[in-house]
Amino acid sequence: MRLTLAFAAVAAAFAASAPAAADEGMWTFDGVPTDAIRKAYGWAPDAQWLARTQASAVRLTGGCSASFVSSEGLILTNHHCVISCLQNLSTADSDLVAGGFNAADRARERQCPGQQAEVVTSITDVTGDIQGAIAALTGEALVKARDARIAEMESAGCTDRAKTRCQVVTLFGGGQYKLYQYRKYSDVRIAWAPEFQAAFFGGDPDNFNFPRYAMDAAFLRAYEDGKPVATPTHLKWNPRAPQEGEITFVVGNPGSTQRLLTETQREFQRAERLPLTLILTSEYRGRLIAMMEGSPEKTREGGDTLFGYENSFKAQSGQFRALNDPAFTAKMAADEADLRARTKGNAEIGDPWTEIDTAMAGRRDTYLDGVFLERGPASYSRLAGYAQTLVRAATERAKPNNERLPGFTDSALPLTEKRLTDAVPTYPWLEELGVGFWASKAREYLGTDNADIQALLGKESPEALAGRLVTGSKLADPAYRKQLWEGGAAAIAASDDPMIRFFAKLDPRSREIKMAFDRDYDAPVTAAQARLAKARFAAYGDKLYPDATFTLRLSYGQVKGWTERGKPVPSTTVMGGTYDRATGQLPYKLADGFVKAESRIDKNVVYDFVTTNDIIGGNSGSPVIARDGSVIGTAFDGNIHSLGGNFGYDGTLNRTVAVSTAAIQEGLEKIWPARALVAELTGGAGRR
Amino acid sequence: MRLTLAFAAVAAAFAASAPAAADEGMWTFDGVPTDAIRKAYGWAPDAQWLARTQASAVRLTGGCSASFVSSEGLILTNHHCVISCLQNLSTADSDLVAGGFNAADRARERQCPGQQAEVVTSITDVTGDIQGAIAALTGEALVKARDARIAEMESAGCTDRAKTRCQVVTLFGGGQYKLYQYRKYSDVRIAWAPEFQAAFFGGDPDNFNFPRYAMDAAFLRAYEDGKPVATPTHLKWNPRAPQEGEITFVVGNPGSTQRLLTETQREFQRAERLPLTLILTSEYRGRLIAMMEGSPEKTREGGDTLFGYENSFKAQSGQFRALNDPAFTAKMAADEADLRARTKGNAEIGDPWTEIDTAMAGRRDTYLDGVFLERGPASYSRLAGYAQTLVRAATERAKPNNERLPGFTDSALPLTEKRLTDAVPTYPWLEELGVGFWASKAREYLGTDNADIQALLGKESPEALAGRLVTGSKLADPAYRKQLWEGGAAAIAASDDPMIRFFAKLDPRSREIKMAFDRDYDAPVTAAQARLAKARFAAYGDKLYPDATFTLRLSYGQVKGWTERGKPVPSTTVMGGTYDRATGQLPYKLADGFVKAESRIDKNVVYDFVTTNDIIGGNSGSPVIARDGSVIGTAFDGNIHSLGGNFGYDGTLNRTVAVSTAAIQEGLEKIWPARALVAELTGGAGRR
Repeated sequence: MRLTLAFAAVAAAFAASAPAAADEGMWTFDGVPTDAIRKAYGWAPDAQWLARTQASAVRLTGGCSASFVSSEGLILTNHHCVISCLQNLSTADSDLVAGGFNAADRARERQCPGQQAEVVTSITDVTGDIQGAIAALTGEALVKARDARIAEMESAGCTDRAKTRCQVVTLFGGGQYKLYQYRKYSDVRIAWAPEFQAAFFGGDPDNFNFPRYAMDAAFLRAYEDGKPVATPTHLKWNPRAPQEGEITFVVGNPGSTQRLLTETQREFQRAERLPLTLILTSEYRGRLIAMMEGSPEKTREGGDTLFGYENSFKAQSGQFRALNDPAFTAKMAADEADLRARTKGNAEIGDPWTEIDTAMAGRRDTYLDGVFLERGPASYSRLAGYAQTLVRAATERAKPNNERLPGFTDSALPLTEKRLTDAVPTYPWLEELGVGFWASKAREYLGTDNADIQALLGKESPEALAGRLVTGSKLADPAYRKQLWEGGAAAIAASDDPMIRFFAKLDPRSREIKMAFDRDYDAPVTAAQARLAKARFAAYGDKLYPDATFTLRLSYGQVKGWTERGKPVPSTTVMGGTYDRATGQLPYKLADGFVKAESRIDKNVVYDFVTTNDIIGGNSGSPVIARDGSVIGTAFDGNIHSLGGNFGYDGTLNRTVAVSTAAIQEGLEKIWPARALVAELTGGAGRR
Repeated sequence: MRLTLAFAAVAAAFAASAPAAADEGMWTFDGVPTDAIRKAYGWAPDAQWLARTQASAVRLTGGCSASFVSSEGLILTNHHCVISCLQNLSTADSDLVAGGFNAADRARERQCPGQQAEVVTSITDVTGDIQGAIAALTGEALVKARDARIAEMESAGCTDRAKTRCQVVTLFGGGQYKLYQYRKYSDVRIAWAPEFQAAFFGGDPDNFNFPRYAMDAAFLRAYEDGKPVATPTHLKWNPRAPQEGEITFVVGNPGSTQRLLTETQREFQRAERLPLTLILTSEYRGRLIAMMEGSPEKTREGGDTLFGYENSFKAQSGQFRALNDPAFTAKMAADEADLRARTKGNAEIGDPWTEIDTAMAGRRDTYLDGVFLERGPASYSRLAGYAQTLVRAATERAKPNNERLPGFTDSALPLTEKRLTDAVPTYPWLEELGVGFWASKAREYLGTDNADIQALLGKESPEALAGRLVTGSKLADPAYRKQLWEGGAAAIAASDDPMIRFFAKLDPRSREIKMAFDRDYDAPVTAAQARLAKARFAAYGDKLYPDATFTLRLSYGQVKGWTERGKPVPSTTVMGGTYDRATGQLPYKLADGFVKAESRIDKNVVYDFVTTNDIIGGNSGSPVIARDGSVIGTAFDGNIHSLGGNFGYDGTLNRTVAVSTAAIQEGLEKIWPARALVAELTGGAGRR
């Protein structure tokens, strides 16, 4: 459940929920509901516990969570959070995805392109400041004023941009704004990862299912000035089995939830966004599978991309299923009715629902333009993404900080530049597939006679366009990208790179679409949501959690199975179960390490386990923390019921799936031996 | 808008609509609303007009409509209705799809495998008989009694099974049953077809759109005893341009509509069936496109299959869009509310809505079993389809006629056997793709741990299973199929063909699923629908048309454009427009014939045109008939708005798209010259 682009593309996050049910909630660290936790579990973390945990919790900018687990910058996360790093470092001769990675010593730990690790150092409420800047503005002016003030605060808050990063986070859909300061580490290296077949045993069929037999874990290390960073505050490594019923905390960065959409917004998800996304993803997935089949090279090169799409497809299928389940949606409808009733006649709140309905009606008409033209082929092609960033940056960087688009402000530029210029391999066949797919679907949905399609495709077929843009582009070369980045507007204007020229043509239209969205949807909806949040606080008190925003949250719960169609699903699996499930064929083929180490492995070691914690995509890699603050696992998935968690949490069914530290240590000791790591994790003491 | 399997797979057709709006309706020939037609157009066809038209109207068992247009068995239909014939007759050296077909003389007209032409000779109301056989039965007994009585009546009604065929048609979802007798012609040959690039100019992007520039027409000829059949009754060929506002009749076999689903049934389509079908089709489409790319051989071999899936995808996308349009569905909800109100307290009608709700609730639970296990890989593979038919026939043919499954009764067997044994090429890569896709999706949706999946896949991966079943099967050989067909149960039991063995294992489960569907859904819903029909007749009179059932219907309307987002769309295009739309790249590449004949073509000849006729998939190839009974076009498509026509008709937007006889004759005279055909069509007189 990695945070993928599909998650990130979801529109602005949302207002507060009605009072949370037991174990429900993704709580901000400045609003942990210790009373409720104590009531449910007879104990709750204190300030010191929370401070230590916050300082140990790591956000990976690729869309994952993680934690420091040694004093020397060692980071525990999921294998699927480092797979693109492994992929980027692989060659035809050395496939680090298939074979895994095991640095013989620190000198051989290898830098992950584009990756950055971040730790929250402070949270400041800036609601008054931002809302003051917005004041009574509407439309485009509202969005501009808000974004300008955010850019200014972020810039002023973190002047050392080599080591810090500031982000203003919009919570409760505009009901609160908080300034998060991060210590950042932009040199992150891979230390250890198991074989893909161990990490992702069961593949797509088992994804989002349980029982599960997956070693979805890996270790990174944060570096600075060429040396591992010192992290005296970190989670204690605790390689023991989880105990049935014990309290567990999952601390990480859930990407996006939409738990308090109005009925109209939810209907838009159900009738428009989710079906379109699922249908597009399915065809792209089919094309990719067919192209990879029979070609080991393409299978290696496209593997990570396919995984990402399949993961996102399954997650969104679950969301779609949930929204089509009347039992599931009835509760939400009732919640809305309740809040409407409580707010009736309150002039200060007014009728935010109708305001959102109006904005939503307009959105249906322009939705396809947004899907196909705002990012264009950048949705499916890395080279196109580079081109869009470069074209846009050339214009934006020439403006004052507080007039730039998000992503190009002072505080955002370092990561944007890193992502643009880090060396990452691109594969022409995959790029052509992406651009060609975009063009063929854009034409299919917008129509051959659509003016934008005519302007962008002219008389070219989608395949011809893709061939021309990809074959002729030099953007695969990081030096060329760097040159265009540094050359600014003049360099872009002078470039004859066909991908650059394509985006130079698209960009004005793309900005127009964004501006219309800001003006006609974002602005009125932000204003309406701010009042909805106010209404909820008034009705239900302030012990509410905001929708997920890929910022640090704490979830509490317990180790616990569930009942599936009358049959109990136990909370744990053991490593030996892998051998029973293996078929000899993918995706149920044993990893080589499992084959070779069979006689050495303790088959009774708890492998994967489930808890009632409330998480979502982006939480991948989050530590599962025991009452004593030690780490006993890393969360890598949810069960199939958890997918509806985007819209609501059902504690009887929703489960987090984690791999236990006990199993990871078994892997480090017996399957892919990494003695130095074990010593580092355990202080040299070993497990038993 | 060919009738595809996707249409055919839709569950039982449905009850009568509320009084039809202007031009709405697919009317049976024993219920043509002449009063309404006269009222709207000042003229209506008389009995003689209708009898002559009925005798000229042809049903093609491949899922299309057509008409006799000469006294020597010449049949006008769409190119896309003969494309699979062209495909089946093609080889690597001779691509009849790309190049077209033009028989130099009758001796060179070539038989289309599996194709059969049928003409309705009589319609008899047998409602009392069938309803008497059902009496007060319920569950499986109801379905068995109904099917037994149908088998008996069909067998008794058409004893000459070489030349006739009987079919009992269920109308109004069980409110009426009628016995249709057909004269059948099982030797149908291709006489003429244009190049694919002319027939399908604009390809998938232009499909279901207008303005349009497609020569989607072809000629077949019915043979008997090796000679063209005499068809003294036929439509007069009238190669003139359609006139704005003139009355037009479309006579053909609309496949299936679902215009009077209850709210619950419609919600099932919206929430379950349509999204699942669209998602599956998209991935399969993607795989197929990627496999064909770069391989001219596979592009040729898979072309027809891809067209079928894209056509079906677009049609069902339109249905899905319609069901997600509140303006569209509000009318249906209001209709249901009206009928409920009028029926309230009527003990004879009872509460059929709740009965259907109950059946529907159960169907949701077993739906996926039906989708993936009732036909298994036969949904995606021809060889698998053969195997399923053979395995099933071995059991069924040993039973008395009135105990057999539909498809294996005396009246159905000849066509089943013809389809099984006619020689048709199969392509191993396409078969493997189909079986592998089925297996991977069945596992994805039912789950790796599902008992059926375990039993069918064992430890094999989907790809390994597909390879083994396809590579090892001899079913591509028609002689082997014939041998198994004739050998019956003993031959099936003795066969070591892996595809046969696979279906021998699947068949008991597949029958169980069908039986459960019959018992738990079909039986109660049939009973409820019979009462719903009764309620509608009581409320709205008997001038209602039944939902489409791939049986002969008449639609009336007029030549008329429409208004699209404020802009008028004219009712016709001219042939010269093709050159303006051409880009030089597929699918907007000019056919060779258009390139070569440019100087000869009269660019002002009306090419394609739209009318307000109410049609649906299965109507493809239907003649468009003028007031004088002559044919002025062949309907090949609907506009994008017509796709909601599955659920309801909106005369302001729904349009039929046809190619004019004037354009066809221009093609026959100047582009792909066929002088003998022109002489036959025009009685030697030519057009002008």
